[in-house]
Amino acid sequence: MTAAYRELEARFARHAAIGEAASMLHWDMSAMMPTGGSGARAEQLAALKRVCHDILTAPETADLIAAAGEGTALDAWQAANLREMRRAWVHATALDGALVEAMVRTCAASEMAWRAARPANDFAAVKPHLEAVLRLVREVGQAKGERLGCLPYDALLDEYEPGGRAARIDPVFDDLAAFLPGFIARALESQAARPAPLPLDGPFPVATQRELALRLMRALGFDFDHGRLDTSLHPFCGGVPDDVRITTRYDEADFSRTLMGVLHETGHALYERGLPVAWRRQPVGSARGMSVHESQSLLVEMQVCRGRPFLEFAAPLFRAAFGQDGPAWSAENLHRRAIRVARSFIRVDADEATYPAHVILRYRLERALIAGDLTVADLPGAWNDGMKTLLGVAPPDDRRGCLQDIHWYDGAWGYFPTYTMGAMTAAQLFDAAARALPELPAAIRRGDFAPLLGWLRREVHGRASLLETDDLLTVATGRPLDPGVFKAHLERRYISDI
Amino acid sequence: MTAAYRELEARFARHAAIGEAASMLHWDMSAMMPTGGSGARAEQLAALKRVCHDILTAPETADLIAAAGEGTALDAWQAANLREMRRAWVHATALDGALVEAMVRTCAASEMAWRAARPANDFAAVKPHLEAVLRLVREVGQAKGERLGCLPYDALLDEYEPGGRAARIDPVFDDLAAFLPGFIARALESQAARPAPLPLDGPFPVATQRELALRLMRALGFDFDHGRLDTSLHPFCGGVPDDVRITTRYDEADFSRTLMGVLHETGHALYERGLPVAWRRQPVGSARGMSVHESQSLLVEMQVCRGRPFLEFAAPLFRAAFGQDGPAWSAENLHRRAIRVARSFIRVDADEATYPAHVILRYRLERALIAGDLTVADLPGAWNDGMKTLLGVAPPDDRRGCLQDIHWYDGAWGYFPTYTMGAMTAAQLFDAAARALPELPAAIRRGDFAPLLGWLRREVHGRASLLETDDLLTVATGRPLDPGVFKAHLERRYISDI
Repeated sequence: MTAAYRELEARFARHAAIGEAASMLHWDMSAMMPTGGSGARAEQLAALKRVCHDILTAPETADLIAAAGEGTALDAWQAANLREMRRAWVHATALDGALVEAMVRTCAASEMAWRAARPANDFAAVKPHLEAVLRLVREVGQAKGERLGCLPYDALLDEYEPGGRAARIDPVFDDLAAFLPGFIARALESQAARPAPLPLDGPFPVATQRELALRLMRALGFDFDHGRLDTSLHPFCGGVPDDVRITTRYDEADFSRTLMGVLHETGHALYERGLPVAWRRQPVGSARGMSVHESQSLLVEMQVCRGRPFLEFAAPLFRAAFGQDGPAWSAENLHRRAIRVARSFIRVDADEATYPAHVILRYRLERALIAGDLTVADLPGAWNDGMKTLLGVAPPDDRRGCLQDIHWYDGAWGYFPTYTMGAMTAAQLFDAAARALPELPAAIRRGDFAPLLGWLRREVHGRASLLETDDLLTVATGRPLDPGVFKAHLERRYISDI
Repeated sequence: MTAAYRELEARFARHAAIGEAASMLHWDMSAMMPTGGSGARAEQLAALKRVCHDILTAPETADLIAAAGEGTALDAWQAANLREMRRAWVHATALDGALVEAMVRTCAASEMAWRAARPANDFAAVKPHLEAVLRLVREVGQAKGERLGCLPYDALLDEYEPGGRAARIDPVFDDLAAFLPGFIARALESQAARPAPLPLDGPFPVATQRELALRLMRALGFDFDHGRLDTSLHPFCGGVPDDVRITTRYDEADFSRTLMGVLHETGHALYERGLPVAWRRQPVGSARGMSVHESQSLLVEMQVCRGRPFLEFAAPLFRAAFGQDGPAWSAENLHRRAIRVARSFIRVDADEATYPAHVILRYRLERALIAGDLTVADLPGAWNDGMKTLLGVAPPDDRRGCLQDIHWYDGAWGYFPTYTMGAMTAAQLFDAAARALPELPAAIRRGDFAPLLGWLRREVHGRASLLETDDLLTVATGRPLDPGVFKAHLERRYISDI
């Protein structure tokens, strides 16, 4: 190990510590900050961002990265750390300052325009903003693609999914896109053949929902010496591995949305918390990327918590908490409610079976927009056509169509595919865990999540960014991403009703 | 205005924004953070501190400071800003890196030893640590004194009280030290001649105390769009001017301690919030120093809220909140309780009349220790002698003597005098406000604090660090600090019973 490598570790530790500070301030902004604090907070975050950028783009960093790999024996973790350092450095240095500034300004203006245009159902009002964002994003993709040696779209994807490439996603999504329309029709048929689930009568007091959420978080392994649950408008998992902050929001008419949301964020939190202590504040010690991150939340929410064994464990807790009883509160009825399928317009409200169709639509559209094969003017029409093809329904207006998500308007291009890559990864990981742990359903049924968490710690969390995403999955499950496992899961749950 | 000056403003804005980030993280650490987050938080804060230090000590900063003042017309605020920039820069550059690091390490070890030694009443255990701290603090005072052109003690004081000098404090404290022993005896006599105040029967639910605290904060002018009230072990005022975070702790057996604590922190908060918006994140836009800061908390708590007019406003609120009534809940009885005097060993529990004696003792001892006229070995004896002289009681052990305060063990030397300078400043400011606003007692009696807040905004808050402390007081009250005003206040409240 060279002095250059050691010095790089020190630099990146400082870089990460400042990033951690920013992460805590982001959490505070959403969960604690009074509205009047937003101006000062923006100044604080901008200053921290600039310091981080300065550390990565300093000439010494380039020199150290060049020197650190030369003829020295780094162990596997150190070599992977250097690989991730280089990746962060390429992303930071690929763009000149003027482009970065233009992005910040243009995205901020576009996001503001979108916030007004969405409720007003006024795509025309935000169209010039979106065009401006797209122009810059294509420039960013071009510049980063040249440095990374990949296509512009891949370079954008690489920010959220390091090493991710459209050539890997295309066959997987094409396969799924061919499967979904028929599958959704069959799932709805199968659902219609069964009696409708019974309603749950509220209201469900916020304090009780919170107690229940804490109880389930604890059961799953969330460590409250190293984290908190708070309230925010948009639930998220924030903070840092040693101090994970998750949030939720409450609806007194519907507790299951809150709880499933908390369980989803708990999946993210367990991943962060399980990252290797020895590599804290080093690039290799960070989460592997957005698809693996989403796989951890969806493994907990979709694979575990909407399944029968979990709901057999949880049903008595629900009944006791809300002082309710009767057939509506049986595990079976709760399960029926948790896996209800419906064609709908809004992605964030979609169920497990239809969600991938929403994502594939967005992935295809953003690729076409970046490639120049689709114009912003043609986006609303292309959106509605795609919805018709993939989901069999077209939204009656743009508010429920191409205006619904913040991502593109805010400059987040290349993010969407990670949701469904994550869902498929979750299915494959849970399948492997179930094979490795034959007693898993019984353990879940009695509320013992230690075997599952142990497996995840070993196979996923503890490996952090040691391996590239594909290799991580191969080592954990015996093969790279296989959409067949996800499809088999959907068949079992929604058609065979196992 | 030169380009150099403008560039300095940009640098200091960045410096301040990062300092603000650290301030928010300090608040979170005390009010929100789970225990397991402390290691990561220490890394975050250390990284921010280093960035701030690097900005101040960069060679460009020195060049800009030298260039900014040259033959250019700065207006009064800009000139004061440059003066405060230079002050911050001198403090940052006076010490070499090795001394700064030794201070951090030695103080951390000493604080840890003190945390164990205090409950164990074991001064011997912490003595070598305190000696090590003192050695370094004397070095720091020496180095900074050379740069500032003042004595080592003054240089230490200057960190908390910019421009503060022992030569200004000595006559003031000597005057007070001569006055206090006789005054305390007379106050106790006068108190004994009156019937003892009636007890208030609790318990007082935490939720009710909190509601009451919020009600009083609102009345005083605390803006909840720009601040919060939370809970922490040691109450404090933190955050930033646009997002002020104050904390308290609750005791179900005694609500008045909580409320008076909240009102004290509210005084600090109103000061921060009233700093001039045009000078946010610039040195001249910051609070003037610790004695002026303490004057704002003590003006609210001691001058206003322990006085009869305020308690006539508050008594009905207390009765309604706790559903109580009867003579114990009269404004007069609440006032009697709020101004109770007792000789005691512990500074933080001391009343308004005896508190200055505690402070003068510490001031004299720390000056002697820094000057080399007193050794750490002789500290316990000197402490007890001083208590006897100033307060007429000597503590039965070091736990209630020289082990009680964290300050010296943690490296905060030169801080103590600001408490009592603040108390005297508060008396003088409130006296001036009362002269300027003849209707003030009537306004307070009906819960209208706008006239007082308006006066403070104009005369103190809005001036930030434009003037040096003495000049600020002279402009606001017509003369520099005059201990006579504080003594007259004590006479009126504790002897004449007005």
